[in-house]
Amino acid sequence: MGSANALKVIDIGIDTHQEPVVYMRSDCHICRSEGFTANSRVSVDDGQNQIIATINVVDEKVIEPGSAGLSKIAMQRLGVAEGTSISVSHAPVVTSLAAVRKKIFGHKLSDEEVTEIVKDISDHRYSDIEIASFLSVCAGSRLDVDEIIALTQAMVACGKRLSWPDSPMVLDKHCIGGLPGNRTTPLVVAIISAAGLTIPKTSSRAITSPAGTADTMEALTTVNLSLSQIQRVVAETHGCLAWGGAVNLSPADDLLIRIERALDLDGEGQLIASVLSKKIAAGSTHVVIDIPVGPTAKVRSQKDADRLASLFTQVGATCGLQVRCLITDGSQPVGRGVGPVEEVRDVMAVLRRSSDAAEDLRERALFLAAHLFSLAYQQTYEQGLQKATEILDSGAAWKQFHRIIAAQGGMKSLPSADFQHTVTTASTGTLQTIDNRQLARLAKLAGAPNVAAAGLRLHKSVGEKVERGEPLFTLYSDTEGELQYALAYYRQSNIFTIGDAS
Amino acid sequence: MGSANALKVIDIGIDTHQEPVVYMRSDCHICRSEGFTANSRVSVDDGQNQIIATINVVDEKVIEPGSAGLSKIAMQRLGVAEGTSISVSHAPVVTSLAAVRKKIFGHKLSDEEVTEIVKDISDHRYSDIEIASFLSVCAGSRLDVDEIIALTQAMVACGKRLSWPDSPMVLDKHCIGGLPGNRTTPLVVAIISAAGLTIPKTSSRAITSPAGTADTMEALTTVNLSLSQIQRVVAETHGCLAWGGAVNLSPADDLLIRIERALDLDGEGQLIASVLSKKIAAGSTHVVIDIPVGPTAKVRSQKDADRLASLFTQVGATCGLQVRCLITDGSQPVGRGVGPVEEVRDVMAVLRRSSDAAEDLRERALFLAAHLFSLAYQQTYEQGLQKATEILDSGAAWKQFHRIIAAQGGMKSLPSADFQHTVTTASTGTLQTIDNRQLARLAKLAGAPNVAAAGLRLHKSVGEKVERGEPLFTLYSDTEGELQYALAYYRQSNIFTIGDAS
Repeated sequence: MGSANALKVIDIGIDTHQEPVVYMRSDCHICRSEGFTANSRVSVDDGQNQIIATINVVDEKVIEPGSAGLSKIAMQRLGVAEGTSISVSHAPVVTSLAAVRKKIFGHKLSDEEVTEIVKDISDHRYSDIEIASFLSVCAGSRLDVDEIIALTQAMVACGKRLSWPDSPMVLDKHCIGGLPGNRTTPLVVAIISAAGLTIPKTSSRAITSPAGTADTMEALTTVNLSLSQIQRVVAETHGCLAWGGAVNLSPADDLLIRIERALDLDGEGQLIASVLSKKIAAGSTHVVIDIPVGPTAKVRSQKDADRLASLFTQVGATCGLQVRCLITDGSQPVGRGVGPVEEVRDVMAVLRRSSDAAEDLRERALFLAAHLFSLAYQQTYEQGLQKATEILDSGAAWKQFHRIIAAQGGMKSLPSADFQHTVTTASTGTLQTIDNRQLARLAKLAGAPNVAAAGLRLHKSVGEKVERGEPLFTLYSDTEGELQYALAYYRQSNIFTIGDAS
Repeated sequence: MGSANALKVIDIGIDTHQEPVVYMRSDCHICRSEGFTANSRVSVDDGQNQIIATINVVDEKVIEPGSAGLSKIAMQRLGVAEGTSISVSHAPVVTSLAAVRKKIFGHKLSDEEVTEIVKDISDHRYSDIEIASFLSVCAGSRLDVDEIIALTQAMVACGKRLSWPDSPMVLDKHCIGGLPGNRTTPLVVAIISAAGLTIPKTSSRAITSPAGTADTMEALTTVNLSLSQIQRVVAETHGCLAWGGAVNLSPADDLLIRIERALDLDGEGQLIASVLSKKIAAGSTHVVIDIPVGPTAKVRSQKDADRLASLFTQVGATCGLQVRCLITDGSQPVGRGVGPVEEVRDVMAVLRRSSDAAEDLRERALFLAAHLFSLAYQQTYEQGLQKATEILDSGAAWKQFHRIIAAQGGMKSLPSADFQHTVTTASTGTLQTIDNRQLARLAKLAGAPNVAAAGLRLHKSVGEKVERGEPLFTLYSDTEGELQYALAYYRQSNIFTIGDAS
């Protein structure tokens, strides 16, 4: 690094989220000699590490001559402190972008091209608009099975991997989502691990939903576990309920998910690669995948579900994973709570076998656990169901759940929301449909999952009779602003249809 | 706007290019009450206007309590000065994004959906990643003719329109590009307007090329003309050579082009809508479109060119425009110069009928002018060619070109580059191919088109014999850094193939 080109780092005190920004004076000699302008993509180098950043040009009053400001993520990724010397040069050409362009124009990508793209993304060489472009043209059904396999394997290759030398069989389950409140994972993990089978569950945070399993479990205990902590918890209890992001199992996927969330997008190929790469990296051997189908679920038709199931099974088999897909009813939410804390309440009620526990949530968890037992022991579904039911009804699952929570650091007391509002029904009749997507959006507008206590609780489910003025749902929020914003959305939405009472 | 939510504007002195940013303290009561974090999309309102911006969270040292910083583009779009009171609230839901998602998943968009998307983009309601997503899924051949018609009409609807009550026939030409140095437009405009036909040419700046006609003409005269200035120049001379962006003929297209440039993307449907919307808004009635085809041109096969020609003609006809497409040789650059100033030199040499004028550039300009005459006068191509040749050879086009330049504000002296380097051939033989794309990239790395004098001059063309050590091309740049960067790219590229001399 030539000293003529050196600039001193200033912590400019700006959080630009995940996109590193370097702030340079408009009269900076490097900007002039290199031809940089606002929005140029540049390489920032401290002699040891190198990151790619976007230039924002600043007035002379903002920064001293000879200095350059770095945003928080830029300082963090480069690993520098104030005063460090850096050089700024043209960003290297990212050659894998030619493959993205090829995909934009509808051509199939080779394994090598997919690998190169994923590597460059995980090395932070793509700008946000480049990631957005890649994700958009891979969404829909635009990746074929070979491309999905390559994407899965490339994602595994650039992350860490867990191994379980003491467990020849490692189980896992995954729900592709779309049903608010469908929090079966903690129940299934408790049941399966209570039987002594290994299920080291790592979950994601919500992508486009009001809560992921990691968000929900975080309301109750520590989910931010390191690899060695996960291994200890599993050694003690056979199971865990950890956040996958903390262990870097699929760092490329985490970067993609951030942009998918901003675009409210969840593409098929990307979904399969995301799910299976994390299962493979977690060391799983047998996986059950729950695919709910319904008019407002993520998967809307039996045909789409069949296609997805076939892809999951094919990609899994090629990657050495035994996958069983289960296509389930996705016509309405599961349980009564939506949002981390409200979903914890539903899970605990089922484990405690409370009289008011949500029956639909209990049945789904037993169904999934039964299939996992059937897969693991090569038994019939009925034999698996009998075993799962015994474990839940005997209280063994409840004890096991506490054992896992204790191993992860103990149980927190649940936070409660500062603001709530109960909406009542406007007419008398039968509740005929609940729109899953709009209901999820309502809970998100109330603050879920960022605020654990935010969300909603349904007081009615599809098929129930409702009287005008009866409570329909209660909305929870941490701020008055979000509560009002969510209610404004509710008023212009069409979440519940109530039909003739006759 | 409640005063409890008011913040005072600070000009934070940061140029964030085209994406407005609002800088808010992490302890700001509005951030906390509304649940905003870094990267939240918010609405900023001064009581009169409203813009959508992205939040960057800043340390307490950066901004006083009760204040919010705005980036330059945010201040400009909102039209506020320091000290103005603003309120910041949740960004309204952009409903047309549902249509973008529909397109991502491969469904056809209705006219209304296209109109709504274009309206929201031109109103600055889309983030950069949302525009990138939309463009990426419309690229390739993913828009059908109905969608392209809708896109064209929506783009026209949200911009200004020119009308020419005194000219029942208004001509225009367009080249879809891909050939470095192919600067026929100034020649065609001079020839056509010298004949007394109306050709109010507005051109774009480069999207992915080293120079657009607007960049090239700007090296010579003022192209940043207002609507009334264009009307005056055309009244005086029947023609003009203006930049289209200054007159807001298609503001949505200008926003799309910025992201297309960053993605190095130029999709078919978007291309047709971009070209034809500007022709319609400019009041054209008869248009000739030049489609060069070659292995490294924008269009690579006769089949693609035929498809593009058919779409141009269909969309034009539906929008009331008579379009004639001409499929031309796109195997190598046209003329010798690449980059604004070097292309001006080629154009002037043809107009002056210099002995060293580029014959290929002259022939292409005559070919296009001939077709325009044939279209306008309903004559044969041969009759048109005779007329065009007479006008060029008599010096009438040369005089007419000076008349237009004078009407636009007079001729500037051409800037020259501070740094240049001549590359010689490494072997003896025949120059067999020149890669248009790589050559364009080389000129861009040298600084074109942002620096007018940057670019290159070819000393050989395809088919010529070359001796080892003879000059192959000269590179021009304003900075040593860019010159070296471009040369480094040249060394690892494969722009010229030189075959056996036998």
